[in-house]
Amino acid sequence: MSTQKSYISTDIDFDREGKHIGRLRLPYSRNTSGWGIIPIPIAVVRNGSGPTVLLTAGNHGDEYEGQITLNTLIRTLEPRHIKGRVIILPAMNYPAAMAGRRVSPFDGVNLNRAFPGDPDGTPSQQIAHYVSSVLVPMADAIMDLHSGGYSMRMLPTAIIYRPSTPELLERVIGAARAWGCPLGILFDDLGERRTFDAICRDAGLLKLGTELAGGGTVSVEALAFAETGIWNLLKYFGVLVASPPAPRHPCPRSGPMRLTEITGPEAYVYATGHAIFEPAFRLGDEVAAGQVAGWQHYLDEIERDPVPLHFHKGGLVACTRGPGWIEPGDLATLVVTDTTG
Amino acid sequence: MSTQKSYISTDIDFDREGKHIGRLRLPYSRNTSGWGIIPIPIAVVRNGSGPTVLLTAGNHGDEYEGQITLNTLIRTLEPRHIKGRVIILPAMNYPAAMAGRRVSPFDGVNLNRAFPGDPDGTPSQQIAHYVSSVLVPMADAIMDLHSGGYSMRMLPTAIIYRPSTPELLERVIGAARAWGCPLGILFDDLGERRTFDAICRDAGLLKLGTELAGGGTVSVEALAFAETGIWNLLKYFGVLVASPPAPRHPCPRSGPMRLTEITGPEAYVYATGHAIFEPAFRLGDEVAAGQVAGWQHYLDEIERDPVPLHFHKGGLVACTRGPGWIEPGDLATLVVTDTTG
Amino acid sequence: MSTQKSYISTDIDFDREGKHIGRLRLPYSRNTSGWGIIPIPIAVVRNGSGPTVLLTAGNHGDEYEGQITLNTLIRTLEPRHIKGRVIILPAMNYPAAMAGRRVSPFDGVNLNRAFPGDPDGTPSQQIAHYVSSVLVPMADAIMDLHSGGYSMRMLPTAIIYRPSTPELLERVIGAARAWGCPLGILFDDLGERRTFDAICRDAGLLKLGTELAGGGTVSVEALAFAETGIWNLLKYFGVLVASPPAPRHPCPRSGPMRLTEITGPEAYVYATGHAIFEPAFRLGDEVAAGQVAGWQHYLDEIERDPVPLHFHKGGLVACTRGPGWIEPGDLATLVVTDTTG
Amino acid sequence: MSTQKSYISTDIDFDREGKHIGRLRLPYSRNTSGWGIIPIPIAVVRNGSGPTVLLTAGNHGDEYEGQITLNTLIRTLEPRHIKGRVIILPAMNYPAAMAGRRVSPFDGVNLNRAFPGDPDGTPSQQIAHYVSSVLVPMADAIMDLHSGGYSMRMLPTAIIYRPSTPELLERVIGAARAWGCPLGILFDDLGERRTFDAICRDAGLLKLGTELAGGGTVSVEALAFAETGIWNLLKYFGVLVASPPAPRHPCPRSGPMRLTEITGPEAYVYATGHAIFEPAFRLGDEVAAGQVAGWQHYLDEIERDPVPLHFHKGGLVACTRGPGWIEPGDLATLVVTDTTG
Amino acid sequence: MSTQKSYISTDIDFDREGKHIGRLRLPYSRNTSGWGIIPIPIAVVRNGSGPTVLLTAGNHGDEYEGQITLNTLIRTLEPRHIKGRVIILPAMNYPAAMAGRRVSPFDGVNLNRAFPGDPDGTPSQQIAHYVSSVLVPMADAIMDLHSGGYSMRMLPTAIIYRPSTPELLERVIGAARAWGCPLGILFDDLGERRTFDAICRDAGLLKLGTELAGGGTVSVEALAFAETGIWNLLKYFGVLVASPPAPRHPCPRSGPMRLTEITGPEAYVYATGHAIFEPAFRLGDEVAAGQVAGWQHYLDEIERDPVPLHFHKGGLVACTRGPGWIEPGDLATLVVTDTTG
Amino acid sequence: MSTQKSYISTDIDFDREGKHIGRLRLPYSRNTSGWGIIPIPIAVVRNGSGPTVLLTAGNHGDEYEGQITLNTLIRTLEPRHIKGRVIILPAMNYPAAMAGRRVSPFDGVNLNRAFPGDPDGTPSQQIAHYVSSVLVPMADAIMDLHSGGYSMRMLPTAIIYRPSTPELLERVIGAARAWGCPLGILFDDLGERRTFDAICRDAGLLKLGTELAGGGTVSVEALAFAETGIWNLLKYFGVLVASPPAPRHPCPRSGPMRLTEITGPEAYVYATGHAIFEPAFRLGDEVAAGQVAGWQHYLDEIERDPVPLHFHKGGLVACTRGPGWIEPGDLATLVVTDTTG
Repeated sequence: MSTQKSYISTDIDFDREGKHIGRLRLPYSRNTSGWGIIPIPIAVVRNGSGPTVLLTAGNHGDEYEGQITLNTLIRTLEPRHIKGRVIILPAMNYPAAMAGRRVSPFDGVNLNRAFPGDPDGTPSQQIAHYVSSVLVPMADAIMDLHSGGYSMRMLPTAIIYRPSTPELLERVIGAARAWGCPLGILFDDLGERRTFDAICRDAGLLKLGTELAGGGTVSVEALAFAETGIWNLLKYFGVLVASPPAPRHPCPRSGPMRLTEITGPEAYVYATGHAIFEPAFRLGDEVAAGQVAGWQHYLDEIERDPVPLHFHKGGLVACTRGPGWIEPGDLATLVVTDTTG
Repeated sequence: MSTQKSYISTDIDFDREGKHIGRLRLPYSRNTSGWGIIPIPIAVVRNGSGPTVLLTAGNHGDEYEGQITLNTLIRTLEPRHIKGRVIILPAMNYPAAMAGRRVSPFDGVNLNRAFPGDPDGTPSQQIAHYVSSVLVPMADAIMDLHSGGYSMRMLPTAIIYRPSTPELLERVIGAARAWGCPLGILFDDLGERRTFDAICRDAGLLKLGTELAGGGTVSVEALAFAETGIWNLLKYFGVLVASPPAPRHPCPRSGPMRLTEITGPEAYVYATGHAIFEPAFRLGDEVAAGQVAGWQHYLDEIERDPVPLHFHKGGLVACTRGPGWIEPGDLATLVVTDTTG
Repeated sequence: MSTQKSYISTDIDFDREGKHIGRLRLPYSRNTSGWGIIPIPIAVVRNGSGPTVLLTAGNHGDEYEGQITLNTLIRTLEPRHIKGRVIILPAMNYPAAMAGRRVSPFDGVNLNRAFPGDPDGTPSQQIAHYVSSVLVPMADAIMDLHSGGYSMRMLPTAIIYRPSTPELLERVIGAARAWGCPLGILFDDLGERRTFDAICRDAGLLKLGTELAGGGTVSVEALAFAETGIWNLLKYFGVLVASPPAPRHPCPRSGPMRLTEITGPEAYVYATGHAIFEPAFRLGDEVAAGQVAGWQHYLDEIERDPVPLHFHKGGLVACTRGPGWIEPGDLATLVVTDTTG
Repeated sequence: MSTQKSYISTDIDFDREGKHIGRLRLPYSRNTSGWGIIPIPIAVVRNGSGPTVLLTAGNHGDEYEGQITLNTLIRTLEPRHIKGRVIILPAMNYPAAMAGRRVSPFDGVNLNRAFPGDPDGTPSQQIAHYVSSVLVPMADAIMDLHSGGYSMRMLPTAIIYRPSTPELLERVIGAARAWGCPLGILFDDLGERRTFDAICRDAGLLKLGTELAGGGTVSVEALAFAETGIWNLLKYFGVLVASPPAPRHPCPRSGPMRLTEITGPEAYVYATGHAIFEPAFRLGDEVAAGQVAGWQHYLDEIERDPVPLHFHKGGLVACTRGPGWIEPGDLATLVVTDTTG
Repeated sequence: MSTQKSYISTDIDFDREGKHIGRLRLPYSRNTSGWGIIPIPIAVVRNGSGPTVLLTAGNHGDEYEGQITLNTLIRTLEPRHIKGRVIILPAMNYPAAMAGRRVSPFDGVNLNRAFPGDPDGTPSQQIAHYVSSVLVPMADAIMDLHSGGYSMRMLPTAIIYRPSTPELLERVIGAARAWGCPLGILFDDLGERRTFDAICRDAGLLKLGTELAGGGTVSVEALAFAETGIWNLLKYFGVLVASPPAPRHPCPRSGPMRLTEITGPEAYVYATGHAIFEPAFRLGDEVAAGQVAGWQHYLDEIERDPVPLHFHKGGLVACTRGPGWIEPGDLATLVVTDTTG
Repeated sequence: MSTQKSYISTDIDFDREGKHIGRLRLPYSRNTSGWGIIPIPIAVVRNGSGPTVLLTAGNHGDEYEGQITLNTLIRTLEPRHIKGRVIILPAMNYPAAMAGRRVSPFDGVNLNRAFPGDPDGTPSQQIAHYVSSVLVPMADAIMDLHSGGYSMRMLPTAIIYRPSTPELLERVIGAARAWGCPLGILFDDLGERRTFDAICRDAGLLKLGTELAGGGTVSVEALAFAETGIWNLLKYFGVLVASPPAPRHPCPRSGPMRLTEITGPEAYVYATGHAIFEPAFRLGDEVAAGQVAGWQHYLDEIERDPVPLHFHKGGLVACTRGPGWIEPGDLATLVVTDTTG
């Protein structure tokens, strides 16, 4: 990570008591505003000393439940609820959030592949750098809220990276159980060095992620999980000292979290054609290796029979394609299996 | 409707016995092919004399269940199943279907607002004209399969236009019941003269439509309705004379169709802001007039409280916004009410 | 003009007493909202019987002073000020206004070349048709506020079309004098049949236009003219019966209006190269025929000397190019001359 | 054809003696110039009385040999060479020519599918209307120079439409022989009513076309044909009364013109896949029905064997695909056969 | 800064006597020219020994007065005028200049945030590197001419960075006074390391900048300042030894330069909405802290009252928004205050 | 080159005997597939021990003959033909190949200016890094097949970089002669450090390149050279141990290779205007210094005479512009001269 200082400044004083809503100001000289900034919304709620929790959403712009949950939390969380500090970024990659797209329209960069970032880089790289170098060092615990976005639909899930120590793993799994989704997935991102998870892993930090629903839409059920879960997490992280307000959406029932993992590349099924993908399963089905995962329909070559895709391994289907249209290399579906450890 | 002849030709002989798969050839001189055509897939299955049924999907390119259903039907429907003729267009607006978008990328035209079409117009206008002037006159009954597309999610529904005679209305409602979806909606398209429905209404034809699911994704449940329903319809229309093959997707149970209507502009709820829309309901809920339909969250103006939208009338929620992002004038939700007649 | 009915509806009752703010609802089925509308803002202020005045801005989206003036008028004009009715459309081509561009991003159509419109056409054509067939027939007098837009900078001017009778001409010139800008230009739009002016001319209506400033920016001086002028006009048109509120911007002094005309094609100077245009004059200069109007600088062909453009006739320079960059056929400048009649 | 008058004006006096170079001025109000024009280059050379010949190129913007030939002719043709009048439009669809694309970037319209045009339509439609209603009525003979453009490569060819009388057919074939290309193709454009040819056919005019080379490049050999041919044509059309200047490019030798025809849809071979097209022939080969025309290579589906395309009928290959990439419906190749009449 | 050598070469010999006009050749392999270059115009005028002055414009492509001034200077400056060397780049970011946009269309990079550049980077990064590593080391004094560009309108101003020594500061202020604009602004670019100023500051060089006008247009008054000023500067920098030619534009009168500074983030006022911005001031007004700077008008939410923006501190308004349309984070206005030192 | 590990994985085992076709899987998180990959086709044919030959095409996506040749070789090359290993990448920059463009649509990067690449960079940079760090180290000899692409047309040529030792130079020239094209060109890429050649040069590897034809089309003659040449090369590189299959295209005759070189910048002729370029030569002509290379025709400035371009040095014309349209800095033509060594 660059040792240069970020150009991002803010009108928020992170050490001040009370609730403060403001902006991170990222200078971005563009055609439409030569001396303009990118104004990234941020809120800080502080009450005396205690742990600092960092909550983020809008890492990807088309994942909405987390953005709604944190925008609501900014309105409902009061200093009296906590002991310590809660930092909230409801639209971390603000340009992507305003465009309703995964990646930023300003630089085409996926924020979650831009960590630890670059203070002299593009806007998304600068955001990653600021989060890495300014916000993460303040935090005792971190929650980054995702959904599947336009291209994926997922079961409500806690996403757990594999930290370096068993003690930390236990704490992260504990956080996942507190979060309250019926499914937890352990994974290591195929070795990625550029994710928010990766820099937290390298720093030995307590961090949880989530996938709430997907398809670029807003799921009321997923919102209900998130709005209850976020307060549960604040409690688990040790900052919540008062009863939360009543949830707006009735809290969904779910049994204890099922802990699963992504075992490797064989868990993923990718499209092979430019086609309409017809799934042969439903999210949450248990499937067997070799089973047909779906068919690719070729309307431009109407004489060609639909070509099937197969599951390479058995397990629980945790993710399916969002849009009907699919192209070679697009993820069609993903299978997880119960952890063995 | 223009009295000029269409430029569209085909290698299909509509009067030949047997099953034939081919193309409509729409000459379209473009930058990437000066003397090229747009090849619209078509299949004709004929066995002796009997009624002609016209089945279309891909009127909008991002409505996939109908396209899959008809692509499958082309493979499973054999001459021995029928007495008469079935004409199948699985991707009626082929350029839109290949782009996975509602409107055609070639002309930005929504095919279902281009009827009765223009033989000298843009590609979508030419398609509308060919359908209106060549295919519709051959047909005794018509089914056009829609889903909600990227921007809307809907309950599985039979869409019924209001024909000019009570006899025909009865027949169309009968077709809707045969189709098998749990919901039927009567509506008159706010007076549109440019839809496929409108030209069938004006011609006094037996025509049914459907909305299957939406959000631009593929619903396995909706597919199951459609694959069973299409054979039911062929029977109702009087061309099916043999047992259909076993359905690939287990047939969903549903009770008798609930017949509803859209009463007028008050049934629609439109967005008023550039925002993320959080629905306060689930598809299929019964709601009351004045009830909050949802909130608009403004992440660019983080200090601004979410602004609610309200239902203008009570009833059953039949449609909700697909994407989380919404802009002024976008449809947020739609309410239907039981028919009184 | 088509005799078909417009699809545009509204929640405004034009005959109701009082002040009402609402929308014209133009159904526009698009990729991002299949059953969405275009919501065009409208306000109606009514107090008893009397003349109806129609005020419009945002005919072109990048002409801002009129939009601001009418948005302010909606807030300041009360029923008690008038006898009769004032209908206000501050953003007549709403999609263009929201894009800050001359033409609509939905159809690429310039609203002011789309009259009298088409009820089955593109959104801009439908707006033109609604204005022509619904609003104009209600109106006794019409004012359409323009500025130069991104591409032109103009002197504050009243724009006067040539009506068919001397009586009407006198009334329009009277309206222009009431409006209060220092310059008036008579012109006939080079024979255009597709402008708002043209349909008013053909209908024998009292209509005034204006050019306020330009360059796509907001001129505080032009705003001051417009905010005072709009109340003057209401008085001239016979609806104002009370004193207007104090203007927000100090009213600029200007002598009596100088009445000029565009004599024909020789008044226009067009660019001949892809270049940077350096004007050799200031707006409002008096120039002579043959005088250099400016130079075209070719930075891609640095060895090439700047090529001059010349005025084809003498007079007052009423318009100059907005952006520095210019291309063949772009208007460089325009000369008006005192009317001889 | 609309009876309205064109908005297009010009600084050229068609009746003046001598050589005059100027512009057609098409008013086009656009974002980048609200009161700008499209300046279409035109030259008129007149010497006394005699026939009027209309020469056009740039009907499609990416067909260059004709544009170069007419730009050169404007420099070399002097009044003393002729008796009568020659009107030259080297870039008829000027916006398309400046973009180097087949269709106009302003309206996406292919000028040669816009005839007879519309005076109130888009720029290309207005150009078509002006040509149809102003220029064509002045002309005794017309030559429109084409090449294959970006998407097609062709043999140097005279393109002959089928006029209504045998006498006129003989004259057109005579013009084709005078033009001097080794190949002539008779065809009727699959019934098109919207081409320059079609309106000349309907008006019983003497008109010739040409395809010179293609691929969006400039062929020196094709230029040589055109530069010699254009003078030959002026002679054949009866306006040339002096010796032409020496050609800049050495005149290619070619035997007498081979007269062929396109017999119908079976002459065309269209792509069926999104692929790289490998031709199995060379331009000018004689091929047999059923012979492989080429293979489609699928690099996205590397396991899939190349799929062949076949000639549907035998003959001379007069056209082949320009770009390596091909999509369903794009023209792969075209076969012509000797006329039988 | 990379120690690698630039790929940019030139046909100019910087050491040759006389006036030479040529190109910097930046190899840029693109879709439209695989082995093409970007040809950046450059002129060198040399007469014996003496200081070297580097003059640049077109750092941003939509800032025109500097480009015109230097294109004119290339034509008027002769070796006999000077003792030493003048290097002139009238369109430093040539692709941006040809596009008339702030940033380069080739890489989306703002050249003035790309210093010191990268020899293996994108075109703009390569230009920055060449200027930093080849041209700047030759220079004894540097002037970089800016205007506000499309998005900002500014008072004619000398822009003065804060160098490291008081002696150098005095010399830069002296240059600013020589330049002749009525206003001077000292500022430190909010800590930017990526500007042309920053690398000159780090290298301890005598460098001046300017803002001339703005709005993406050409101001005749600003041109007059620049054309006189550039000769004044050559004299101040010690290369001018003869009388300059008479200025083309009459020299504007202005008193002694008022020296001001930007004190920090509180000087900037940013938009908070997607709206039309109505300024409540004129450029050059003196304003007080807390005063309303303007209103944001929301035409999409017509019921919403305009939201004001306020000045955070008092002073002289040196900059205002160019376009009427504004979005959150865009600069609305900027205040400077007299230097206290 | 970064020492980080590539994220690219593969289902191919490079050490397994036999023929295997699969994909390189480059993880690329994009709007349309959040967890998708880019699937780059690869084939490996292995038979026992022996040298490893790496064959690549699709470095640029619009150069088709190489892609066809390698797609065919994957089908015809069997383990029995060789001793050793052949690794084949027919579409190295897969996204560019699927777009039919020189550079990748995902990042705008030209793969052949991205070496040695970056494992954390954009897709093209990651491909370059994988090739550099994984494939090149396995290879004893390398052939990268190019054509001129859309923008250039070239004579069939072997492209020879200048290696560091005379021994290696001799081997590369030997490979060029084996390849069988009539022309060989030695060049050093104007000092480029970012090409596939450059990293092979720095590593002292035996590598050959080729330019086959160009213009973005498929040349049957060039295909014939390539299909015969690729087997010749396998023999020269020492892996071929059996007779190749009969070529599909008849092998063109050509005499011994003429060995030439590019002497420096004076060999290149660049455009100076936005114009249509008319060449005054044919590919393969011998030209003299100072001779006219062609003319630039300005259809937007019809009064301007065509401006000539001249050859700066004499020699053989090896390359000419593809498209008729040309802009300043685009390569017009290139001259090579016989090597003197």
